[in-house]
Amino acid sequence: MATHGQVITCKAAVAYEPNKPLVIEDVQVAPPQAGEVRIKILYTALCHTDAYTWSGKDPEGLFPCILGHEAAGVVESVGEGVTEVQAGDHVIPCYQAECRECKFCKSGKTNLCGKVRSATGVGIMMNDRKSRFSVNGKPIYHFMGTSTFSQYTVVHDVSVAKIDPHAPLDKVCLLGCGVPTGLGAVWNTAKVEPGSNVAIFGLGTVGLAVAEGAKTAGASRIIGIDIDSKKYETAKKFGVNEFVNPKDHDKPIQEVIVELTDGGVDYSFECIGNVSVMRAALECCHKGWGTSVIVGVAASGQEISTRPFQLVTGRVWKGTAFGGFKSRTQVPWLVEKYLNKEIKVDEYITHNLTLGEINKAFDLLHEGSCLRCVLDTSE
Amino acid sequence: MATHGQVITCKAAVAYEPNKPLVIEDVQVAPPQAGEVRIKILYTALCHTDAYTWSGKDPEGLFPCILGHEAAGVVESVGEGVTEVQAGDHVIPCYQAECRECKFCKSGKTNLCGKVRSATGVGIMMNDRKSRFSVNGKPIYHFMGTSTFSQYTVVHDVSVAKIDPHAPLDKVCLLGCGVPTGLGAVWNTAKVEPGSNVAIFGLGTVGLAVAEGAKTAGASRIIGIDIDSKKYETAKKFGVNEFVNPKDHDKPIQEVIVELTDGGVDYSFECIGNVSVMRAALECCHKGWGTSVIVGVAASGQEISTRPFQLVTGRVWKGTAFGGFKSRTQVPWLVEKYLNKEIKVDEYITHNLTLGEINKAFDLLHEGSCLRCVLDTSE
Ligand SMILES: NC(=O)c1ccc[n+]([C@@H]2O[C@H](COP(=O)([O-])OP(=O)(O)OC[C@H]3O[C@@H](n4cnc5c(N)ncnc54)[C@H](O)[C@@H]3O)[C@@H](O)[C@H]2O)c1
Ligand SMILES: NC(=O)c1ccc[n+]([C@@H]2O[C@H](COP(=O)([O-])OP(=O)(O)OC[C@H]3O[C@@H](n4cnc5c(N)ncnc54)[C@H](O)[C@@H]3O)[C@@H](O)[C@H]2O)c1
Ligand SMILES: [Zn+2]
Ligand SMILES: [Zn+2]
Ligand SMILES: [Zn+2]
Ligand SMILES: [Zn+2]
Repeated sequence: MATHGQVITCKAAVAYEPNKPLVIEDVQVAPPQAGEVRIKILYTALCHTDAYTWSGKDPEGLFPCILGHEAAGVVESVGEGVTEVQAGDHVIPCYQAECRECKFCKSGKTNLCGKVRSATGVGIMMNDRKSRFSVNGKPIYHFMGTSTFSQYTVVHDVSVAKIDPHAPLDKVCLLGCGVPTGLGAVWNTAKVEPGSNVAIFGLGTVGLAVAEGAKTAGASRIIGIDIDSKKYETAKKFGVNEFVNPKDHDKPIQEVIVELTDGGVDYSFECIGNVSVMRAALECCHKGWGTSVIVGVAASGQEISTRPFQLVTGRVWKGTAFGGFKSRTQVPWLVEKYLNKEIKVDEYITHNLTLGEINKAFDLLHEGSCLRCVLDTSE
Repeated sequence: MATHGQVITCKAAVAYEPNKPLVIEDVQVAPPQAGEVRIKILYTALCHTDAYTWSGKDPEGLFPCILGHEAAGVVESVGEGVTEVQAGDHVIPCYQAECRECKFCKSGKTNLCGKVRSATGVGIMMNDRKSRFSVNGKPIYHFMGTSTFSQYTVVHDVSVAKIDPHAPLDKVCLLGCGVPTGLGAVWNTAKVEPGSNVAIFGLGTVGLAVAEGAKTAGASRIIGIDIDSKKYETAKKFGVNEFVNPKDHDKPIQEVIVELTDGGVDYSFECIGNVSVMRAALECCHKGWGTSVIVGVAASGQEISTRPFQLVTGRVWKGTAFGGFKSRTQVPWLVEKYLNKEIKVDEYITHNLTLGEINKAFDLLHEGSCLRCVLDTSE
């Protein structure tokens, strides 16, 4: 291929400074080194983690950087020693790697692979501990090991899920973050059983995916809780069959849910990132067995609290990252489930824009009507 | 029997006021009503919950009352409709009831039976919502549905475990609270697997029982943590094979344990009742799977806290009450295990006194050298 082994100059959205509009730039993307894969990104969506780091509130955020972690594309070329994918493969970059060799991968108990963390956590690649991105010779940091707001990106081979080439990339790009997170929180982390009562705090993409996961797991009551009552209409399509707006009640929301469910729910999910809602989600669980899963990501430095009696009387407090899915193994499986119409994906896409319109897409993230906005990177 | 259907006058230790010495009194114990059992208590031990309520710090403590909840005795008589025990049966009163009918019992997920809670929580009996104890006609409250600091007590039939009459009551009285709590925290709540690393915060009776539970479950490293280094010697006999005194370190104890175990333990147990240690116990767990169980009971109003990231990265926070054991079903099974020498009991008994010496026994509770003090109630 003409680009193989060459530096590629392409368009990318660079975040030069926190809270300043991203700049569409000509970026140089170096060839993949040993164990690396260069991917032509075709579609990327936006997620709250991008907005959080961009806002400057993430103390580990590094600038300038190329954000983005929910995307799909085609392998352009691979570095030395890469055997599991090759040029032309359709792939989803995975911010949560899966090496199948580290103690996390081998434990069978978690999806939190540690193999490339020491590099992806600080915006560089493992091989030479440098970035593959530059503008006029100045390096630009990677983000979450994915940096998908670019026409080309370089990722570690342990961070690439090879998927069925029949899958529409403008849809399955969503399987890179939010949708699996919600489904997996139910299937892998909580392990909801048929007949369960479930409370979902926050009905954005993640909360709706939790609803869908709960519905397919056979939950009977799926109670959605959101401060925006307009969310209920859409949420019904994902399985939510009761709705509570905390603003309609004077009592703490946990008391409202406990009364509504004669003692509390079997499972609750916090899909907002608000530490006081995390407490409410735990405390609305049924004594003796109720399990609460934290899915939302709180701002740095914030803490959760409760009385220990809540746990001593049988409630369980958990959390989940990428829904507990092993990325390289299970993202392709989720793609198959989508192709077999067993899980929704299209329904989360409310907006389509181009990479050039990315700042507008960031604005949309804060609008109640937007679930996921997919950017076409070709324009 | 001569006493059947009669009021019995006997000795009991009455707590008239918080923090004032208990008074050995002639107490009138009314006959058991429908669904009730009157028990001649032969031996009772002291536990921290007795001391906590006695201290006045328990906002739900009611005075005057008869404390005590770790004991063994013989059924004196039973009320109408009681079929599962009869006069002469050897029994252990259980503060955690088991009715086998309520939604908690039927769930199969918890031991927290709710049947008599509305009465035991407020120091009375279900049948007429009155006490069976009085002194000169003035009622004395029950405590935890057991009130074992008395030569006779009346309990609900769902709170009586019938045990093998060969078991020495001066030993198995301990199976009424502390020892099962520790064993069950490991076996039922955490479900520790062979080869696990375990950290135990607090090496009193409960912590030692956790150690024994972990050892029988096949844990490999059993790290005891106590601010009293003298505890290590005894703890070795219960399975603790490493010891850390937080006072020997400048760093927070969770960091010490994480370093010692290359990333954290698989399971941790808080057996003190200190909310900052509860946090340390969670945070010393391994990312991805570490599970922390709160066993200690914190003072009323105190709260636990941590960063939600601790849970999002895979740690699990749980608690346990009576080690998750179903009392009427499993206390007899624990007695059998003791008789078969599969679990220790004698080794926790460091002191023997009489009911008349109960105030001295309360003093002993705060002495490092005392695990359990058993009172002979006959003298
Ligand atoms: N754990 C993970 O691996 C992971 C992965 C992806 C996203 N996330 C996190 O999940 C969270 C949700 O993501 P999303 O894309 O669905 O977000 P979103 O903003 O689209 O949805 C949040 C919803 O919560 C509602 N809400 C806000 N405050 C509320 C309150 N106090 N009570 C009730 N409802 C309230 C909003 O109206 C909105 O509908 C974010 O914190 C995100 O960072 C976590
Ligand atoms: N959940 C339940 O069902 C249940 C049942 C019984 C007892 N408990 C609770 O379990 C706890 C332990 O009971 P016990 O009888 O073993 O108590 P104990 O007082 O005999 O033991 C506590 C131990 O903790 C140590 N300790 C105190 N502060 C410490 C610190 N900051 N760091 C490390 N070690 C420290 C003490 O030196 C002591 O060895 C109590 O809170 C009790 O109320 C709970
Ligand atoms: Zn995301
Ligand atoms: Zn790995
Ligand atoms: Zn006790
Ligand atoms: Zn019950």
